[in-house]
Amino acid sequence: MRTGIPATMQAIGFDEPGGPDVLRAESLAVPQPAEGEVLIRVAYAGVNRPDVIQRMGRYPAPPGASPIPGLEIAGAVVAQGEGVTPDSIGQHVCALVTGGGYAEYCIAKIAHCLPVPEGMSLAEAAALPETLFTVWHNVFERGWACEGETLLVHGGTSGIGTMAIKLGKLFGLTVIVTCGSDEKCAAAVTIGADHAINYKSADFVEEVKRITEGKGAQLVLDMVSGDYVPRNLACLAEDGRHVTIAVLGGMKAELNMAQIMARRLTLTGSTLRARPDEFKALLCDEIFGTVWPHVEDGSLRPEMDRVFPLREAGAAHAHMEAGSHIGKIVLETGNG
Amino acid sequence: MRTGIPATMQAIGFDEPGGPDVLRAESLAVPQPAEGEVLIRVAYAGVNRPDVIQRMGRYPAPPGASPIPGLEIAGAVVAQGEGVTPDSIGQHVCALVTGGGYAEYCIAKIAHCLPVPEGMSLAEAAALPETLFTVWHNVFERGWACEGETLLVHGGTSGIGTMAIKLGKLFGLTVIVTCGSDEKCAAAVTIGADHAINYKSADFVEEVKRITEGKGAQLVLDMVSGDYVPRNLACLAEDGRHVTIAVLGGMKAELNMAQIMARRLTLTGSTLRARPDEFKALLCDEIFGTVWPHVEDGSLRPEMDRVFPLREAGAAHAHMEAGSHIGKIVLETGNG
Repeated sequence: MRTGIPATMQAIGFDEPGGPDVLRAESLAVPQPAEGEVLIRVAYAGVNRPDVIQRMGRYPAPPGASPIPGLEIAGAVVAQGEGVTPDSIGQHVCALVTGGGYAEYCIAKIAHCLPVPEGMSLAEAAALPETLFTVWHNVFERGWACEGETLLVHGGTSGIGTMAIKLGKLFGLTVIVTCGSDEKCAAAVTIGADHAINYKSADFVEEVKRITEGKGAQLVLDMVSGDYVPRNLACLAEDGRHVTIAVLGGMKAELNMAQIMARRLTLTGSTLRARPDEFKALLCDEIFGTVWPHVEDGSLRPEMDRVFPLREAGAAHAHMEAGSHIGKIVLETGNG
Repeated sequence: MRTGIPATMQAIGFDEPGGPDVLRAESLAVPQPAEGEVLIRVAYAGVNRPDVIQRMGRYPAPPGASPIPGLEIAGAVVAQGEGVTPDSIGQHVCALVTGGGYAEYCIAKIAHCLPVPEGMSLAEAAALPETLFTVWHNVFERGWACEGETLLVHGGTSGIGTMAIKLGKLFGLTVIVTCGSDEKCAAAVTIGADHAINYKSADFVEEVKRITEGKGAQLVLDMVSGDYVPRNLACLAEDGRHVTIAVLGGMKAELNMAQIMARRLTLTGSTLRARPDEFKALLCDEIFGTVWPHVEDGSLRPEMDRVFPLREAGAAHAHMEAGSHIGKIVLETGNG
């Protein structure tokens, strides 16, 4: 029996895939940390698009992961397994997790945790890991973005989009985003985007050409896919890279391979959740070295949209699906 | 007036695009080398698929390049422009050129020349540059091939295919090729391929899966494109790379972007002819350092098919288009 840790906790799950209303509270045993793991009393859990897709039944939890949604959390470490040194009990951390974040307690690998610096709220900390790990890996590692290059991101006011703007600007990129309204475009520019294109009133291909004086962008971070892909490729400069992190607009894309060859374009992509623990630990290490100093000095904060109580996770999902949010949505357990 | 160099030379050109019979001899002024260039008395010129496509009118010479076909030559340096040090006159070299190879004399950048070692014929030397530069760049640079990985190449007995086999084996790859007959498969294995699949009698996707015990290949060097692309991707292991260097089977490919994302595949490609001189010079330098020692010690030789007299360039093209060749076809000027 662990002092001060209850035997059970409230968590949010679902019995059958469906709309936001399938999410419902349940009482579960508080999990035990194994070797290299910590138990975190969750203060806040970030809501991400993959949680919504999981709830719809189209993105099942990978083998070994909790069936409870939730890929990022922040809170206090309250227990630890073997091999966790130095003692982490009582520390405030945020963590990337493979699931189980929508709960009062959640297990994380200690190697996937980052310390919450002074002056940063736990709500903000919970909103960082998923988009930070995803954008860092796909823009700067997989996409080879270099200082002085131009990045095009769709969904400029989404969690990913706002993180891409902020990270891009911190690391010397020109950032062009697309958004679905003039209001969102204005918000994206306020957040830091160099250019925001309303894709409903303008052809983003033409706009990117105009903005880059015909040269094109060096990188597209794509979460739409489908028939956006050939249009994205038309936005790319020679030697440009196209990195797919979601297929919200469809999976099938018809490509002109001669264009890929003649203009030396590169298409790739990745998902984060299914990667091995070792990969995530390396990525976490790299982010701690390269990005975390900007979190510590206050120059990087997630763009926050709204906080919902944990028990209203369904409302949080409905809010994300309505699409009017700007930045991150988080759930509050009341344990903060 | 340059001693021993005639004012005019025989070259092979064409007036209108068409079949092999449009190629005809013409008398042209012998060109003058500019700064950084040498004039080579051509002994042999390699024949490549892009020459055939150029003759068909579908691959025009890039701006500034000779309209005469021919992308690789070997012979003696007979004149040099300013800035060529040390003196190269009289040296036997092979060179990558942007055109003009089908002629008795041809200009090359000195930075795109490689010395022909003792014991190597000029016919062999002329058969190296185009496929060596193409395969090296696309397999080891663009495609990141590493020792111990598996490479799949279509057209295993083509100039590119035979070079890919030889380079792959020299640098520690397992090489799987596809060919259109059992005879060609046997030839590819004799040349060094670890596995050769007759694509007419077997499904190469199934065969690659079987050979790699379900893991797939790390790299596909693709010159077919079109509807081969999704099949190639099905041959790839996770994190696999697909590098397109020709689109002989068509330009359009329908891709599943979710597969690219979930399996972290990478598609890219390149063409050699249109790259800047500086790029080719860097590539030439790298090849001199990494591959040329194997040419000098005799462990790398091009696979030779047939030698045609320069004036029979049309017959050489017809021979390539008939598709029964194994390895490289070269043209002989009689200046060897």
